[in-house]
Amino acid sequence: MSKVEPRVLKGFRDYLPAQMIPRQEMIAGIERTFQRFGFLPLMTPALEYLDILTGKYGEEGEKLLYRFQDQGERSVALRYDLTVPLARVVAQYAEITLPFRRYQIAPVWRAEKPARGRFREFVQCDADIIGSRDMMADAELVQLACELLAGLGVEQFTLRLNNRKVLSGLMAKIGVPPGPADTAEAGVLRTVDKLPKIGEEETMRLLREENGLGPSQVEEVLRFLKLRGSTSEILNQLRGLFGEGSVGRQGAEELSQVFAILEGSGGSGKAAIDLSIARGLNYYTGTIYEAFLGNLPGFGAVMGGGRYDSLIGIFKGEEIPGVGISLGIDRLLEGLLELGVLKQRESVAQVLVTVFDPSRAAFSAGVAGLLRASGISCELFPAGAKIKKQFQHAERSGKTWVVVAGPDEESRNEVSVKDLQTGKQESVSLDGLAPYLSARVGGLDPRP
Amino acid sequence: MSKVEPRVLKGFRDYLPAQMIPRQEMIAGIERTFQRFGFLPLMTPALEYLDILTGKYGEEGEKLLYRFQDQGERSVALRYDLTVPLARVVAQYAEITLPFRRYQIAPVWRAEKPARGRFREFVQCDADIIGSRDMMADAELVQLACELLAGLGVEQFTLRLNNRKVLSGLMAKIGVPPGPADTAEAGVLRTVDKLPKIGEEETMRLLREENGLGPSQVEEVLRFLKLRGSTSEILNQLRGLFGEGSVGRQGAEELSQVFAILEGSGGSGKAAIDLSIARGLNYYTGTIYEAFLGNLPGFGAVMGGGRYDSLIGIFKGEEIPGVGISLGIDRLLEGLLELGVLKQRESVAQVLVTVFDPSRAAFSAGVAGLLRASGISCELFPAGAKIKKQFQHAERSGKTWVVVAGPDEESRNEVSVKDLQTGKQESVSLDGLAPYLSARVGGLDPRP
Repeated sequence: MSKVEPRVLKGFRDYLPAQMIPRQEMIAGIERTFQRFGFLPLMTPALEYLDILTGKYGEEGEKLLYRFQDQGERSVALRYDLTVPLARVVAQYAEITLPFRRYQIAPVWRAEKPARGRFREFVQCDADIIGSRDMMADAELVQLACELLAGLGVEQFTLRLNNRKVLSGLMAKIGVPPGPADTAEAGVLRTVDKLPKIGEEETMRLLREENGLGPSQVEEVLRFLKLRGSTSEILNQLRGLFGEGSVGRQGAEELSQVFAILEGSGGSGKAAIDLSIARGLNYYTGTIYEAFLGNLPGFGAVMGGGRYDSLIGIFKGEEIPGVGISLGIDRLLEGLLELGVLKQRESVAQVLVTVFDPSRAAFSAGVAGLLRASGISCELFPAGAKIKKQFQHAERSGKTWVVVAGPDEESRNEVSVKDLQTGKQESVSLDGLAPYLSARVGGLDPRP
Repeated sequence: MSKVEPRVLKGFRDYLPAQMIPRQEMIAGIERTFQRFGFLPLMTPALEYLDILTGKYGEEGEKLLYRFQDQGERSVALRYDLTVPLARVVAQYAEITLPFRRYQIAPVWRAEKPARGRFREFVQCDADIIGSRDMMADAELVQLACELLAGLGVEQFTLRLNNRKVLSGLMAKIGVPPGPADTAEAGVLRTVDKLPKIGEEETMRLLREENGLGPSQVEEVLRFLKLRGSTSEILNQLRGLFGEGSVGRQGAEELSQVFAILEGSGGSGKAAIDLSIARGLNYYTGTIYEAFLGNLPGFGAVMGGGRYDSLIGIFKGEEIPGVGISLGIDRLLEGLLELGVLKQRESVAQVLVTVFDPSRAAFSAGVAGLLRASGISCELFPAGAKIKKQFQHAERSGKTWVVVAGPDEESRNEVSVKDLQTGKQESVSLDGLAPYLSARVGGLDPRP
């Protein structure tokens, strides 16, 4: 038998249980918040017709699509994000009633150059409200973003808001021609988006050399990005900058409305305007935002999103507005592990039931069944191995309690229970075993 | 803007919320049972190197792989099942301690000819114990299979067990040469596997015409398949059929051990021997089983699995035994919906909070926030639309309660709550709203 080298593709990962356990805990917490906000689950296929995905992600993005011909010679591609499939779904099904709020947690694939923290397969988690142009929807998503983090136990974070119309207003003011994908405006915005990462000097250089702005244009962009003050002070400065009826003024008014709702409903504490937030993707048309963990300043955004009022029209022929947030499960998990909000664990079950020898298999299996029927998670050692080996397995696999079920114990209708942390061992009757362990395992055993 | 026709690929599906809600409920129930049995979550990539997947599924299976060249000219394929990636993982990571019990719930892709109930993308749900040759592991998985169904509220089901060695014994007895994939033995077993679907006549015809068996061979196969009686009676007949030390006898002894453990631990009620269970896949080497819903006799198996002691060796160079079960999420869901064990639902949230007009947006957002902070799921209508339209939305989206938050109510620190089922409307103070709805929504709101 020729051996095949076991390995994964570059940019792809296996998640072993120690990583998966906190990850699932986090996802369950996220889903609870989605449900509390009335968001509904949706699932779309991993593979789409290629033409569903092309023309949405810009030239750079499109190069990263995993595309191929299937057995029926159809051009297909693995999904690149969850937003475009959502837009397709909304256009496709008449039974969807608007406003429609859905969430989806699923992997997406991008053939990026792998780098630290950048993978070719990663799980996105999106929530969107489709069918409302009202800033209530934008405020609701900002509120959701805050509750998602708070619900996971994160205390220090900020949500930084901006508006694409404000940025378009700035572009108009400095004379950069407007337009969505692959235009001068999109190029300048991509550079602006990098400011927090690359700093002021490098941003200026790129604006000059890559985007072809002159010195006064660069100066104006930087002056804009440096507007500071309270939310209402910044909003007033923006109103001063943009004339009545201009696109920039409209963006400032939208921002103002979002903050009015947040403040009036008691939910603005974590949100602030940040004019350097630009978001890379082409389809945003209004509000945009990113969330940052307060205690990890260099970590970058863990969540982002915004309003896209033209995307669904590509499939539908009529414009349907949408606004959403997207978070990278793995990035957020990394942040929460670093903050200690979540912990890696080797096991969910805290109890191992051992087997004395093959002739006692049924007794041990019965003991495990009894615990499970009482809602106590346990692993049954699945062979009649040496007891020392079974204890080693208990330790390596993160168990705290070992149940020893030998022939002496069986004859007395008892088992012995050893606490691996204290080393203490006690005899417990079969009838008393589930209550005994329930009381001790207690909060350690997070049954969902 | 040219319109792109919104559509999904043949054999692929979107899951809208009404389908997703019971599906997620079912998956959550399955995960609870896995955890109670001490199984650990694992995740592997959707894409694998092609050579990891080839040579494992037989000639027919291999044709169904979605394969292509990636941007780096690597030959890759979408995963076909969850067992081969598990085998790769066990061979690849030294930190995995055996016995290792893991579960994985994830989509797999097969370019099958689409048919009713057969899709090219479907979610598999697997649980396996790796590293034990002992029949305790097999009994544990039979027990798990029973608890999975019982835990979902299914009362009537059977688990039918067989053993590949028993079938190999039969083949040896009638003179069919042994062997795994694409051999005479595998061909005969594939035909035997079809018996429940195609009936005795057709099975006999295939055994003659496709597998080239003579009349006496066919007769012996059928006599074997018709062995009936209690478990111990069938086991005795098998012992009579196969000589001491033969592979068939070994299979009968393995079956006998599994039943001894199940009976001794009080868990055999749903399990029975069925010698016609053969399982299509090549890699099974011992115990095999399938689960059937008792009240849906023609529905086919909803779960299946068995022991595979040679698969991991392909990656590892040394043999590591494994035994597992696999269930098709969508098939089982279909069965549970048909049985009425699960129900389709349009919404998880039972409450809609309405908005009187744009100037009251903050008040309504505040009311929604108050409910959510009390753990009550609610949808906030995200725009200042006509109240009639908002009530229509509540009905279409499956809500039971509508909270009306108008200016009169706001001035009295109140809201009105309407019960859509009775049509009754009451004024409730803001302070009393969460308790009022908590008491009424109660069990309707399944917060995980």
